[in-house]
Amino acid sequence: MDYIRNIDGGFSVIENLKVSGAREGKYGVSIILCPNSTASGVFTSNKVVAAPVKYTKNVLKKGIVSAVFINSGNANCFTGEQGFKDCETLVELVARDLKLPKDEIAISSTGVIGREMPIDTISKVAYESLSNLGNQPENSLAAAKAIMTTDTFPKECAVEVTLTTGEVVKIAGITKGSGMIAPNMGTMLSFIVTDAVIPAKEINNALKQAADISFNMIVVDGDESTNDTCLLMANGASGVEAVKDGKIDENFQEALNYLCIDLAKKMARDGEGATKFIEANVCGAKDLNDARLAAKSIISSSLFKSAVFGGDPNWGRIVSAIGYSGCDLNPDIVTIAIADDSDEVDLVKNGEILAFEDTPYLERAEKIMQSKNVIVNIDLDLGDFEATAWGCDLTYDYVKINAEYTT
Amino acid sequence: MDYIRNIDGGFSVIENLKVSGAREGKYGVSIILCPNSTASGVFTSNKVVAAPVKYTKNVLKKGIVSAVFINSGNANCFTGEQGFKDCETLVELVARDLKLPKDEIAISSTGVIGREMPIDTISKVAYESLSNLGNQPENSLAAAKAIMTTDTFPKECAVEVTLTTGEVVKIAGITKGSGMIAPNMGTMLSFIVTDAVIPAKEINNALKQAADISFNMIVVDGDESTNDTCLLMANGASGVEAVKDGKIDENFQEALNYLCIDLAKKMARDGEGATKFIEANVCGAKDLNDARLAAKSIISSSLFKSAVFGGDPNWGRIVSAIGYSGCDLNPDIVTIAIADDSDEVDLVKNGEILAFEDTPYLERAEKIMQSKNVIVNIDLDLGDFEATAWGCDLTYDYVKINAEYTT
Repeated sequence: MDYIRNIDGGFSVIENLKVSGAREGKYGVSIILCPNSTASGVFTSNKVVAAPVKYTKNVLKKGIVSAVFINSGNANCFTGEQGFKDCETLVELVARDLKLPKDEIAISSTGVIGREMPIDTISKVAYESLSNLGNQPENSLAAAKAIMTTDTFPKECAVEVTLTTGEVVKIAGITKGSGMIAPNMGTMLSFIVTDAVIPAKEINNALKQAADISFNMIVVDGDESTNDTCLLMANGASGVEAVKDGKIDENFQEALNYLCIDLAKKMARDGEGATKFIEANVCGAKDLNDARLAAKSIISSSLFKSAVFGGDPNWGRIVSAIGYSGCDLNPDIVTIAIADDSDEVDLVKNGEILAFEDTPYLERAEKIMQSKNVIVNIDLDLGDFEATAWGCDLTYDYVKINAEYTT
Repeated sequence: MDYIRNIDGGFSVIENLKVSGAREGKYGVSIILCPNSTASGVFTSNKVVAAPVKYTKNVLKKGIVSAVFINSGNANCFTGEQGFKDCETLVELVARDLKLPKDEIAISSTGVIGREMPIDTISKVAYESLSNLGNQPENSLAAAKAIMTTDTFPKECAVEVTLTTGEVVKIAGITKGSGMIAPNMGTMLSFIVTDAVIPAKEINNALKQAADISFNMIVVDGDESTNDTCLLMANGASGVEAVKDGKIDENFQEALNYLCIDLAKKMARDGEGATKFIEANVCGAKDLNDARLAAKSIISSSLFKSAVFGGDPNWGRIVSAIGYSGCDLNPDIVTIAIADDSDEVDLVKNGEILAFEDTPYLERAEKIMQSKNVIVNIDLDLGDFEATAWGCDLTYDYVKINAEYTT
């Protein structure tokens, strides 16, 4: 895919865009200033929904976003009427300061659930963040840092893509969290901006397609947050149309998918307490849903995740996880392999078990399980569908981080 | 329920029943000799099914079981044709020794998946176990011990029940494992014998009803084994009919439910690495499925389980777990309380949040979260259905046990 190129600088690569971040203790505020952008969002499917998620869904009905306010440290979830008032207060603060229409400002929060927002502290950090808005790489990094909770590193990605027309546009994004269905301090948040021109009608489909194969395919612990949010804004600064005849440019979609997968993998790699990265590739599924179920089941299995942490080649746990995933499976024809960056070994080949005790297969598997990147490759041999999911190992530190969070 | 009385002695309370257990290192063998009993089984729904599960399902078609062979240390799963041959070999060994028809012998295995059975070692332990058959309390305890894997204590229960007719029968059972959908060395196994007379036709319903509200409502880590098996045998030694006009005696069913819940709770309490026991009671659900979904979601949440381990009153994680469980939920009317053996405190009452920071509610919640038994009580206020689920906290030791299992 030589039409997609990684570039440095995060949000700074997009013209007509300013961002910032500021932090005081556990409370951070990032601002994204992207006047008059078309916008789309994907959100948590949890039935308990945080106030800012409801608020932002409403903003998106108009389809235009000019700024995004994001705070870390408090999720503003299960906070009743006061939660909505706090959204209003913060949005008004931003609208006044940036002289923007109130109804074009989106808001996102991440942190502890069921505690009132410390509105004074967050307002103070908000003013500081607003005073730092800029279009340099360090501004992008500050924004990526201010939304972090238990994340151990900031997560940015930017790409340049040559469309099928030969024209060039850019996409940049930041993210925080340890998994769409996982979040430590409660949330995965992602914010993406492109300088392409994308009408409001088409931007939704583009984001949904990308989110389905990226953010929706990472798991850290199976818990799904009340605040998960991914926003895509198109500010049109390049003047290049990414939609022709109502269809999104193929290369643009590929580049958006690539960027979302890159951000998703960074989250999986930074899963709470993670020491290792796991990728599960499933092919030969009878339909797409089966492929997704099987891939996600492997990276969600506490037993397999613990085995990866311990470097234990207990591949029976892979078999078991596919078995209870709900996907169609014929144990007599399945092929199961594990791999790392330098080796790949079949454990079960077309239903025949190779990795019995004292075989070279099991010895090689043992070595692979010691690697930093453990890849599981499954061929169900029942059809033509495939899916990939990403996750991390289950470690002492996962338990430690989550046993000690609010207190 | 004064018609159900706990009694000591495990299997020894049932006449015409002999049991035994023997062990060599990680390999144990238990034998249950219950000539000519009607029998029923419930099994794993994992699509990968161990050889002994397939074998025993076939035995149950006839509906008569005279003996059960159980081994620990190897699951005999994903072992191909050899796995079935090994079942045959072990069943023949038992049939010869006990002079029983081969097709009345059930077999169960638990342990590592995807490794061939060490048939010589297991045969040797089997002969030792067969030579120890007896009807004393110590025989029952030996049987409960020989099926243990990472279990930290043997699990038995026996009850005496007065039927609605005034007649008295007994039920006894043993179990191993850390959860139906959880198993450490791969499996929950339960074996129950009653001296009541129960025709083959009715015994299935009785067991299914009991398993649904007991073994199917405990979770340790969400992984479902390839070997899960629960067998119920009625040897009729009491001569008392527990079925009248095709319907099981109500009191008998209650007693069977009670015994299964007792065994299930013992498994949850002995969940791998567990330091605390969690019970989740959900009432006011719009249907039974919703009640079960919500209760199981709470005890399955890695985030909440970690919080219980750390004694952290992070009740937002309860809200979140109900929210993504799939059950119908209206946050504006829900009531959430936590309790231990000496206190109960509302966190959210009819949708109103009480347990904000620096409130006495949160202080009491903090104290409750330090207890050995943490109880969560939810009223969804949407209907009349209720369910209870049991689990345990997520600890460093869970990770340790499962990171080091096969190697």
